[in-house]
Amino acid sequence: MRNGFPRPPRPVSASAPASGSGAGSRTTLLVLDAEPLPRLGRLTGRVRIEHADESTLAERLPRADVLLVWDFTSHAVRRAWPGEGPRPRWVHTASAGVDHLMCPELAASDTVVTNARGIFDRPIAEYVAALVLAMAKDLPRTWDLQRQREWRHRESQRVAGTRACVVGSGPIGRTIVKTLKALEVTTALVGRTARTGIHGPEELDRLMARADWVVSAAPLTEATYGMFDARRFGMMQPSARFINVGRGQLVVEEALAEALSKRWIAGAALDVFQDEPLGPDSPLWGVPGLIVSPHMSGDTVGWRDELGAQFVEMYERWEAGRPLPNVVDKKRGYVPGH
Amino acid sequence: MRNGFPRPPRPVSASAPASGSGAGSRTTLLVLDAEPLPRLGRLTGRVRIEHADESTLAERLPRADVLLVWDFTSHAVRRAWPGEGPRPRWVHTASAGVDHLMCPELAASDTVVTNARGIFDRPIAEYVAALVLAMAKDLPRTWDLQRQREWRHRESQRVAGTRACVVGSGPIGRTIVKTLKALEVTTALVGRTARTGIHGPEELDRLMARADWVVSAAPLTEATYGMFDARRFGMMQPSARFINVGRGQLVVEEALAEALSKRWIAGAALDVFQDEPLGPDSPLWGVPGLIVSPHMSGDTVGWRDELGAQFVEMYERWEAGRPLPNVVDKKRGYVPGH
Repeated sequence: MRNGFPRPPRPVSASAPASGSGAGSRTTLLVLDAEPLPRLGRLTGRVRIEHADESTLAERLPRADVLLVWDFTSHAVRRAWPGEGPRPRWVHTASAGVDHLMCPELAASDTVVTNARGIFDRPIAEYVAALVLAMAKDLPRTWDLQRQREWRHRESQRVAGTRACVVGSGPIGRTIVKTLKALEVTTALVGRTARTGIHGPEELDRLMARADWVVSAAPLTEATYGMFDARRFGMMQPSARFINVGRGQLVVEEALAEALSKRWIAGAALDVFQDEPLGPDSPLWGVPGLIVSPHMSGDTVGWRDELGAQFVEMYERWEAGRPLPNVVDKKRGYVPGH
Repeated sequence: MRNGFPRPPRPVSASAPASGSGAGSRTTLLVLDAEPLPRLGRLTGRVRIEHADESTLAERLPRADVLLVWDFTSHAVRRAWPGEGPRPRWVHTASAGVDHLMCPELAASDTVVTNARGIFDRPIAEYVAALVLAMAKDLPRTWDLQRQREWRHRESQRVAGTRACVVGSGPIGRTIVKTLKALEVTTALVGRTARTGIHGPEELDRLMARADWVVSAAPLTEATYGMFDARRFGMMQPSARFINVGRGQLVVEEALAEALSKRWIAGAALDVFQDEPLGPDSPLWGVPGLIVSPHMSGDTVGWRDELGAQFVEMYERWEAGRPLPNVVDKKRGYVPGH
């Protein structure tokens, strides 16, 4: 129960105060948000909801029991997280990646961090399938020729029987594999540690070198930062394509641009970038053979509602003292796998 | 056995002369072709191969045992087919559709007609999946925005759970259904006659009216000519998209253009047209929401070799007196289904 601040650090646990009901005992839920706001319908009146933006987060964080990071583009949590003193017992981010909020202080604390695991799997997998098929069928060129009113028949590629190397063995990577397999693509999944059906990182180079499609869906961690670099693009087949739906920082963008310009590889698609949004002056817009999309691979109609509903459901578990799903391993920077 | 012309009509059968070997007894294979020529490697030396184009076909047809219609864009067979007298006993077309060669005289004759059933199924199904996913994920707009160097996030559509109505229950339509099902699309297949897993034409209107995707993969026959008209586009959902990979004449193009302009439907993709190639002055290039591609959905790298190999294999069966596969029902205008 809380009704003032500052206050001494509490014994931190992932469950709500035992006396979670009653007027004076309401939990304070702080939402770091940008428009549009999440729909938290069922929680209205049950929870004291406060809002913060980048400028007010540091001030409001100490009096919050729960922080909902709705604006996943913001790095404000990392900057505002208190090294000591009162702090939320639970932080939920409405995103799959947690790189935008993790910092040593949060990792060291006993605050529980959860993510939106599950919401984006299928949309992102479909998006990857859309890019694979669009590139195989030469659709970007078809659009160019249509604009020029030019009938030019080309041969396209059969997707069935090609090989994909999917990097990132979380639910998104696994759903990508499942979707590509349904299109009769031969797949290899690479994760942080080898286990049944998943190759370890030591096999990445070998698998990349024989892949027609290399798909990056890894979490951004110290181990994965800049992993797709000149050396790795250099080892891919000249006919191969690279797709990144993970995080922009997984890719050395200059190396990818050079690999495409020099035709080390045949094409690429980036949905995520080191700096988002990409400014109009970015050279990436014009790199030959590169498809640029605005970080939208997981965002199908209704995604905000789904994220809101997921949080409400998790909140009710937390309030009831039941264990939370999607708990992030804060040292590793992702939810450990199955 | 033949070594001269003209000659009296033979008793026509689908099998080769019994004395098919020996120098004087060689079969004459006439190829109606445009560049590039098919690779008929194994037949070299075993068969007398002649070539014809549109201007020489009528003259050369009577002395041919077998006609290979390699140039499937030509309607020359229809014009040149002899009403009487000697004629090939077997006509094979390197295409799925036979509309370009069927005529009353050929239908009435006992010449066997076969098609390239099987070669295009998987490529066309992948092409349809590419279009479905590209439209769901708004890829054409992504390309436009990239050219304008504009970062504009949009919500896209989830494909899983949408409904497709596929018209045409031959191997191409069935493979489209299989591929869309693999993407978790709910599918309905409509054929000329209702049977297990296939709806009859009387159900088409009802199924089209509730579909998110209407895919045309029917053969062109008298019954299907112009079947996608203003009435049918008017009954589709405003959010629905139409895809034609069958034949251009299945669609009333003006009606589709109007349906798109008036937003009766959300989008369309045509790979086939009433007049091919589409001239630069065609209004279709500029219809809003219409994707135009140059009759390439089935043509993956190596398709010509596959068509050539398929014909060589069929020729060897024919030469050995074994029954031919892919025999077209000349009254119906397609290979009857399974």
